[in-house]
Amino acid sequence: MADPVRITTEARAAALTGGRILLAHGGGGSAGDALLDDVFAPFQAAAHPRQDAAALDGTGLFISTDAFVVTPVEFPGGSLGKLAVCGTVNDVAMAGARPRWLTAAFILEEGLDVDLLRRTVADMHTTAREAGVAIVAGDTKVVGCGAADNLFVVTTGVGERLPGVDVGSHRARAGDIVLVSGTLGDHGLAVMAARAGLPLDPPIRSDCAALNGLVGELAEAVGPHLRCLRDPTRGGLAATLNEIAAESGVTICLREKDLPVGPTVRDACALLGLDSLQAANEGKMALVVDPAAAERTLAVLQSNDLGRDAAIVGAVTEPSAGRVWLEGEFGGRRRLDLPRGELLPRIC
Amino acid sequence: MADPVRITTEARAAALTGGRILLAHGGGGSAGDALLDDVFAPFQAAAHPRQDAAALDGTGLFISTDAFVVTPVEFPGGSLGKLAVCGTVNDVAMAGARPRWLTAAFILEEGLDVDLLRRTVADMHTTAREAGVAIVAGDTKVVGCGAADNLFVVTTGVGERLPGVDVGSHRARAGDIVLVSGTLGDHGLAVMAARAGLPLDPPIRSDCAALNGLVGELAEAVGPHLRCLRDPTRGGLAATLNEIAAESGVTICLREKDLPVGPTVRDACALLGLDSLQAANEGKMALVVDPAAAERTLAVLQSNDLGRDAAIVGAVTEPSAGRVWLEGEFGGRRRLDLPRGELLPRIC
Repeated sequence: MADPVRITTEARAAALTGGRILLAHGGGGSAGDALLDDVFAPFQAAAHPRQDAAALDGTGLFISTDAFVVTPVEFPGGSLGKLAVCGTVNDVAMAGARPRWLTAAFILEEGLDVDLLRRTVADMHTTAREAGVAIVAGDTKVVGCGAADNLFVVTTGVGERLPGVDVGSHRARAGDIVLVSGTLGDHGLAVMAARAGLPLDPPIRSDCAALNGLVGELAEAVGPHLRCLRDPTRGGLAATLNEIAAESGVTICLREKDLPVGPTVRDACALLGLDSLQAANEGKMALVVDPAAAERTLAVLQSNDLGRDAAIVGAVTEPSAGRVWLEGEFGGRRRLDLPRGELLPRIC
Repeated sequence: MADPVRITTEARAAALTGGRILLAHGGGGSAGDALLDDVFAPFQAAAHPRQDAAALDGTGLFISTDAFVVTPVEFPGGSLGKLAVCGTVNDVAMAGARPRWLTAAFILEEGLDVDLLRRTVADMHTTAREAGVAIVAGDTKVVGCGAADNLFVVTTGVGERLPGVDVGSHRARAGDIVLVSGTLGDHGLAVMAARAGLPLDPPIRSDCAALNGLVGELAEAVGPHLRCLRDPTRGGLAATLNEIAAESGVTICLREKDLPVGPTVRDACALLGLDSLQAANEGKMALVVDPAAAERTLAVLQSNDLGRDAAIVGAVTEPSAGRVWLEGEFGGRRRLDLPRGELLPRIC
């Protein structure tokens, strides 16, 4: 078997062959990594491209930005507007910070239904109010018909460091425990099912939710024991845990039977040939915690409605070259790779 | 003559007729105002939609966000990348703040030339380094071919309040002096000429530049005397001064002969039927200052290369209903209105 590091390097080089951007470059998998390495990394010596939010030196504040291009704009359980607030609120929260302020920039296509824009803006404000963050600045641009697809929204969030919390994808160490805050793949499958018009009964609802309240509860209960907090969006849990394994230089082992996946998502994945571990979530966390605090963390998660299906799903087993293994129900194990190629475009 | 306030109200109501977004809604004129009033204002009780940047309460920081959709992506004197940094740096600077951090979100069209992306990113980093700001966080999304036009970039900037400076569009008062930091309309005409393939010799170069250094010099020399700082981007000087007049409840009188306009821009405006006072600038400021500091302000501006063509162009004459007048060379005067309808789409 070839050295996995070499395979990855070759895959990354290949991903930019042809000199054209592919949908795969936006998918949260290895092609996206190649784009980051090739185009953006040369300029990012100081910044850490794999963190959800960046520290503003000397201020105690964190900042994060995200572009939202989901289609359809409205889907069961959410909308582009709700997503644009939750996604950025969560990215700030995952840095161990309390999100306080948001900005929003809109790119509108000429001919866009003004009522759809109104609903989008209303969803943003309702979601922001419920999450306790203020939308303080904005911008609107209009491009000609055909130069965008309905509307895109970019939100940027700023939050204050939570006292006693120091999390980062580089902080996992052997012996730590891995948890997820609930069922996996709901958002990705909800959007794909809506886009494909799949007649699912009941329909899959996106899990789109702001997690800052839950992170605040965790900070209070087990703050110093939290090592990594990440929201597994594009590329799903597979991408997030591979990033943590790589950044921390550890091996992560998951128990397949303990990974919570809803029955409809499981069926839809089988039907569509998708993997729920690679599908996006927009209201879930992956957590790596000190083993001494694992049960307490689980209890805090399960006592909040947004974490009612939380589970301990694995452990950090040893320092090594950054791999994630999935242990099957009958004892076998297989590697859970970083997603490759085009996954689910325009899922968020 | 009908009451101008009534005309404005009717124009705004008409601007959303049909329930579809028009290019005019992005033009920085009255239709854009209508969109703000109708869709965004109901949710912006606390925020002040007409300021270039918003204060983050209790931190001494200001934040601003802007979407950049300019076409062509590269033009004489600048590029989308350079613009995306300068535009947001300037918005933060115009709040009387020192820009320190930027985030950047990219929306890429499938099929985009990777070399164009590389040049865009390189321009952003060169411009940011020269302006002394750090790009600390980013995001990249890819949408299908035809769902965007090449690439869009949204930047968000955060900066620290400059001590002793308290500027705002509501602070102009009778007796104040109005200055501009240089020639008007260069950016708008450069982009329009590039788009139209006009064979101008010499070509019009965009004035795209980061003004934070110049604002820092002004703060040091005349800080407490500065009342309003604005960069006249979309809608040009006409939109900016109308906003200041409206927010401050004053009348502004400009002397037409003192308004600096380059000869090529003047000719191109005549050719294209455009008004240089309504065309976008991306490296210029409009300033309202205490009359005691007007000459000193002019001297500071002119001693910086970015302000070498600065001029005193008018005065705040009286408290009133927020009008801007243009006095011609032979004594007549006409009203300088807020631009209406579609101006120059995708100019920034």
